[in-house]
Amino acid sequence: MRSIPLRRWFAIVGVAIALVALGAVARGQTNWYPSKWGAADQRGAANRITPAKVLEARDLIKTGKLYQLGHVYEAGMPMYGTRHYSIRIPYPFAMPGKNQAVYHDEIISGEIGQIGTQFDGLGHLGIGDLFYNGNRRSEFAKAEGLAKLGVENVGAIVTRGVLIDVAKYKGVAQLAGNYEITPADIKGALQREGASIKPGDMVLFHTGWGSLWMKDNTKFGATEPGIGIAAGQMLVDAQVVVVGADTWGVEIMPNPDPTLSAPVHQLFLAKNGIYLHENLITEELARDNAYECMYSYAPLRLKGATGSPGNPIAIR
Amino acid sequence: MRSIPLRRWFAIVGVAIALVALGAVARGQTNWYPSKWGAADQRGAANRITPAKVLEARDLIKTGKLYQLGHVYEAGMPMYGTRHYSIRIPYPFAMPGKNQAVYHDEIISGEIGQIGTQFDGLGHLGIGDLFYNGNRRSEFAKAEGLAKLGVENVGAIVTRGVLIDVAKYKGVAQLAGNYEITPADIKGALQREGASIKPGDMVLFHTGWGSLWMKDNTKFGATEPGIGIAAGQMLVDAQVVVVGADTWGVEIMPNPDPTLSAPVHQLFLAKNGIYLHENLITEELARDNAYECMYSYAPLRLKGATGSPGNPIAIR
Amino acid sequence: MRSIPLRRWFAIVGVAIALVALGAVARGQTNWYPSKWGAADQRGAANRITPAKVLEARDLIKTGKLYQLGHVYEAGMPMYGTRHYSIRIPYPFAMPGKNQAVYHDEIISGEIGQIGTQFDGLGHLGIGDLFYNGNRRSEFAKAEGLAKLGVENVGAIVTRGVLIDVAKYKGVAQLAGNYEITPADIKGALQREGASIKPGDMVLFHTGWGSLWMKDNTKFGATEPGIGIAAGQMLVDAQVVVVGADTWGVEIMPNPDPTLSAPVHQLFLAKNGIYLHENLITEELARDNAYECMYSYAPLRLKGATGSPGNPIAIR
Amino acid sequence: MRSIPLRRWFAIVGVAIALVALGAVARGQTNWYPSKWGAADQRGAANRITPAKVLEARDLIKTGKLYQLGHVYEAGMPMYGTRHYSIRIPYPFAMPGKNQAVYHDEIISGEIGQIGTQFDGLGHLGIGDLFYNGNRRSEFAKAEGLAKLGVENVGAIVTRGVLIDVAKYKGVAQLAGNYEITPADIKGALQREGASIKPGDMVLFHTGWGSLWMKDNTKFGATEPGIGIAAGQMLVDAQVVVVGADTWGVEIMPNPDPTLSAPVHQLFLAKNGIYLHENLITEELARDNAYECMYSYAPLRLKGATGSPGNPIAIR
Repeated sequence: MRSIPLRRWFAIVGVAIALVALGAVARGQTNWYPSKWGAADQRGAANRITPAKVLEARDLIKTGKLYQLGHVYEAGMPMYGTRHYSIRIPYPFAMPGKNQAVYHDEIISGEIGQIGTQFDGLGHLGIGDLFYNGNRRSEFAKAEGLAKLGVENVGAIVTRGVLIDVAKYKGVAQLAGNYEITPADIKGALQREGASIKPGDMVLFHTGWGSLWMKDNTKFGATEPGIGIAAGQMLVDAQVVVVGADTWGVEIMPNPDPTLSAPVHQLFLAKNGIYLHENLITEELARDNAYECMYSYAPLRLKGATGSPGNPIAIR
Repeated sequence: MRSIPLRRWFAIVGVAIALVALGAVARGQTNWYPSKWGAADQRGAANRITPAKVLEARDLIKTGKLYQLGHVYEAGMPMYGTRHYSIRIPYPFAMPGKNQAVYHDEIISGEIGQIGTQFDGLGHLGIGDLFYNGNRRSEFAKAEGLAKLGVENVGAIVTRGVLIDVAKYKGVAQLAGNYEITPADIKGALQREGASIKPGDMVLFHTGWGSLWMKDNTKFGATEPGIGIAAGQMLVDAQVVVVGADTWGVEIMPNPDPTLSAPVHQLFLAKNGIYLHENLITEELARDNAYECMYSYAPLRLKGATGSPGNPIAIR
Repeated sequence: MRSIPLRRWFAIVGVAIALVALGAVARGQTNWYPSKWGAADQRGAANRITPAKVLEARDLIKTGKLYQLGHVYEAGMPMYGTRHYSIRIPYPFAMPGKNQAVYHDEIISGEIGQIGTQFDGLGHLGIGDLFYNGNRRSEFAKAEGLAKLGVENVGAIVTRGVLIDVAKYKGVAQLAGNYEITPADIKGALQREGASIKPGDMVLFHTGWGSLWMKDNTKFGATEPGIGIAAGQMLVDAQVVVVGADTWGVEIMPNPDPTLSAPVHQLFLAKNGIYLHENLITEELARDNAYECMYSYAPLRLKGATGSPGNPIAIR
Repeated sequence: MRSIPLRRWFAIVGVAIALVALGAVARGQTNWYPSKWGAADQRGAANRITPAKVLEARDLIKTGKLYQLGHVYEAGMPMYGTRHYSIRIPYPFAMPGKNQAVYHDEIISGEIGQIGTQFDGLGHLGIGDLFYNGNRRSEFAKAEGLAKLGVENVGAIVTRGVLIDVAKYKGVAQLAGNYEITPADIKGALQREGASIKPGDMVLFHTGWGSLWMKDNTKFGATEPGIGIAAGQMLVDAQVVVVGADTWGVEIMPNPDPTLSAPVHQLFLAKNGIYLHENLITEELARDNAYECMYSYAPLRLKGATGSPGNPIAIR
């Protein structure tokens, strides 16, 4: 058998490597952002909720005052794109018996994990086909529910909540609709408040934008102030669990870089397993200068869902 | 003018009184069960949630352990009557931009306030036309949502939770499907646990029936063990806020008196403004002998809804 | 025993009669508008569809040209009040097998019998509690579907269709939004067309208002030209089966008499069992001067529904 | 420059060809089954509905008798997989005015194009990524509706309908649940009936399986008799427009070849643009020996939907 020239070897090996690489891409098996909680993890930053963190949150309850952070779900509330919400009360049902029991319930339809006050799960948004922990949408997204990363995996989140009142820090009632919250804003606002962010926290931004809810829905939904990529990275580094705001997307929308859509969602959900909590009510907390609280929330365990509605509670 | 004979006077006056009475009935203005929180009250026993009660609950958090009390919502779960639950994941949406943001959400339809783990609001069940605080279904029930008694009025409920493990007290893993929990059972179980019920508490029954969930749905839904009228009255007298259980209706179903349907629902909701929390997971609490906890739950603020889904949290 | 004076007799008898009458009203048993098709009838004017009528319609097919009278159902179409329509395509289902069968379907929610092109059934609208043939809403309307008068009772309607082009008769492209079509208009338009109305016909009005559909939905839905009570009575007398139009309500809305809402609906549905077909496409028929056709339509047999969507066909 | 050996040329060219072919597959641009109605066609065999075909159907109307071919849509009807159907009647709406107009409508949710009597559009089922006329699911399937092949493109179908009573031909009331209808059966049954299939026809199979509807839903849905691939090809060659049956899938299910799922759906929808009409009522036609009729049906114009519900009409 005669020898193969070196150049030919290079060509053959090169083609082989290229084919294998293309195959891997085609099969979508590369995980550029492995989870620090292991290859099988579906809970992301919720793993940071430990008994110690719960006890830390407990110690922030001083007065027993409760705050509902969730908006009322109702016809006419702001909704993204063509999402919808419908509620109807059917005719009542009369039960048999001399005690005349009569009941009714409600029929609801809508994208209820992604309208109104909403908690974004890890199956909501990704980078092309790539979602949290290297999971591929083309593999786990199914008609009857996500086969992985469904919001039922999150579990209860009871932790320290930190309110960052950027509006007050900037001396305004409401940030402008195109205002990007920066790392310096976060530092400055925390310094003003005498507060700090610790690993495992829930961070809650007050921008004042939420006062437009059901007052000027068009303006509310057109743009929003919010954190940019730099502030997002700062929160990733701080190892938080959930980032919420009184806006519909938490991050600045549209992004100042016109070639980017929702990059902070990608940074949080797909790359770091950190959750977003959108359309929260922060006004009362801000009015009370309530910068620390227990945040108590457990997503509805909707099997295979991308998010959850809710009425999270802040307790002081 | 001649005088009118006395008998005639009686007749006329009698007819007049009867007509007025009939008119009152027809207009439904009699309130047989006025709320102790005033004629305008729509919150019922949720008024018992005070800052002091929250602080009392705080002090029950000793270990930082969290319990999810809510079931997974999924196709095939037990549902009452012809209620339904459907979830579908639509095709994803690709956002513009070089960062390839892609998202999807979920379409859900169903009686989501009255399926799976569910919290019964005061607009859910009444006595003929009469609901909580003298409100008439014929007046407040509207196609687009209840005009009164909607679950959005309840607010956050953070309070002391007391687990009453009747199964363990009776020395069984699961009460029989027609077992009526009596006042003596409650007293006995509490005594065994060294626990007690205080005003403002959430009371949670462990019957073992919940272990049938998604295992034998037919048996689970056919009947259920639960409190009878006497035990219900005992809890009313104890001034609780919410009564929950690992069953679909909290009270014994069907009622031992075949002429009655859901009389404890009427006693709680219509007459006393006390809420029911159905289809809760109690197994883990029972296993841990966790008889006291902080119960943290806020119904979804679904405007005009009769109930709410949820994933209530117990914290110890 | 002494005699009772005559005046007293009158009084007693009068009260008795009044009480009986009031009782009848309260029980809702008076049928002011008995159906000419019998006390059990639920089909109303659909009884006029006979084999002879079908054959009459057959003979109107001369060219074989088909007209779709139904609009496209789509997001953004005009809808009355807070009705909604949502369609989503879930992720596909892959079937097992080497032939790679893959399918998807659609999830739809909405008041689909009462949005877009819609056929009003006899259970849709009444006079207080009174619906067609003396049926009482309080008795037949049930959460899971109307127990009587559901649209599944109507059956197939194949009959002669008559287009009445009132716009052309009045020399305009579009009638004004507050224009009441009168008996004189009907007579005049028919005379111009050389057409006539016969018992059992479907009558179809072209007003030009339909050209606003998806062009100016706000104007389209704010008011509409249409028949008034007098024209409605003329059609009742003519013994038609269905009255349709290129408007959302067929009759003039709002009614010129500000104390009346939808009186022609009552005249047709509740008193005479005549159907309405709303939001039809009439432009192409009008352009073709197609004044007679076979109208072919069968409501979806939605058990207990108040109406039906559809795509009725005109054939010439 | 030295010459390249022939073998090497073959290798290089071979690799290049393979890469280009793989690329084409990856991009999904090959159209193995081009439509005979042009590259832009979305209507498939509905193009065969011509005025001449309508006139041919007209001439089949002899008696004026109407047949509803659509089942009642109701709770408990057979449904494939986890599809659902829910209908509820909300509380009524009272309109202003002294004439007491009161109306209600219905809330419906479900896969209404793919439950009950259903018409499969060309966007319903394909071969991997490949659908009718080379359209790729990965390109045209969108969350808010199919961007191509939506059922709104079909148009009205009025044509000659031919009933093929295979049950009667085989001398049974009901074909067995695993019976494959063959070309010989079709020929034999047509010969017995004295009927024939012509281009542009709608073909309707009576198997007797439909008598299980709402009688034995479990058996009805477990399997079904129906045409196999050979009979399907015969109908393709006969240039029909729609093939319907009194079964849930028209074709034999499961396929006798266990490696195939729904191959006749692929043959009809993806390769030939022929529609399926499922869960039709054929009993009355069969009883009347009504082998020819006018079939009149127009799918609901549900934008971007994969199918349509309906109540098709047969007229004789």
